[in-house]
Amino acid sequence: MLNFFGTPGTFTGLALRISQFIFASGSIVLMISSNTSLNFTSFRMLIMSMLFQATWSFCFGALDAYTLVTKRVFHNRRANVIFIVVGDWVTALLSLGAASASAAVMVFYLHDLGGGSAVGRLSGEYELKFQMSIAMAYMSWVTSGISALVMLWILAAT
Amino acid sequence: MLNFFGTPGTFTGLALRISQFIFASGSIVLMISSNTSLNFTSFRMLIMSMLFQATWSFCFGALDAYTLVTKRVFHNRRANVIFIVVGDWVTALLSLGAASASAAVMVFYLHDLGGGSAVGRLSGEYELKFQMSIAMAYMSWVTSGISALVMLWILAAT
Repeated sequence: MLNFFGTPGTFTGLALRISQFIFASGSIVLMISSNTSLNFTSFRMLIMSMLFQATWSFCFGALDAYTLVTKRVFHNRRANVIFIVVGDWVTALLSLGAASASAAVMVFYLHDLGGGSAVGRLSGEYELKFQMSIAMAYMSWVTSGISALVMLWILAAT
Repeated sequence: MLNFFGTPGTFTGLALRISQFIFASGSIVLMISSNTSLNFTSFRMLIMSMLFQATWSFCFGALDAYTLVTKRVFHNRRANVIFIVVGDWVTALLSLGAASASAAVMVFYLHDLGGGSAVGRLSGEYELKFQMSIAMAYMSWVTSGISALVMLWILAAT
């Protein structure tokens, strides 16, 4: 059995899942703190994507915790590993896409349009909250990308 | 020596590089066909990112062609493989980020703003060209992502 940084069923693996979940949830909470966000197509997509990320990370974080307690190993079967690899890659790429999309719209709105448009003018407070939400989405992508790389490595090396 | 689909120095590897180069170049040409694109921060970023992608793919496409002709192998040294893996991953993620960013701004512009803003109104012709450019950027990401996965697989398996 492989056992290095980030492997499922280890403390680092669990820590990765927990940070993914925290960043994704934080991103959602900051984003839905204003109704205005729903006027932006990309922000709606970010909320969906972060919801998927949070659910996925919560499930596999719970599985990691279960593994740590019971010492049962579930990633020694190739089929399980393939399932986690595919899921991790889909969530990681979705998170990157949604975070980039939201960041781009935020830049377009604040910089190119000069902070006002037909969609509605954001107050300074929400501009800040949305930017923090996007930053958290990027953090959730980074942690999720690490998990995806580790899982692919395990798949290739077994 | 590993030799499967997409390995550098094989015909499929060369075909991947050529399609990356064609898609990235096509994306740039379509994007710079209108000066208006430079008003959009994300479109400028897409041009930069596609320029990087086209250069990278051209260099390694040329190296693949050279390998095919001379039968010399350059990916049997771990240091070379690590260099290509890192470069491939950076270009692939940049392409995905830039393509998502541009697509998001395009949707924001056309859908959320209803196709007109302080940045300037696009004519129907350019709306179509920009969308085609973004589609080609996504295609270049897909082909570049395949290269990146293949290279990581080679790194993990050797």
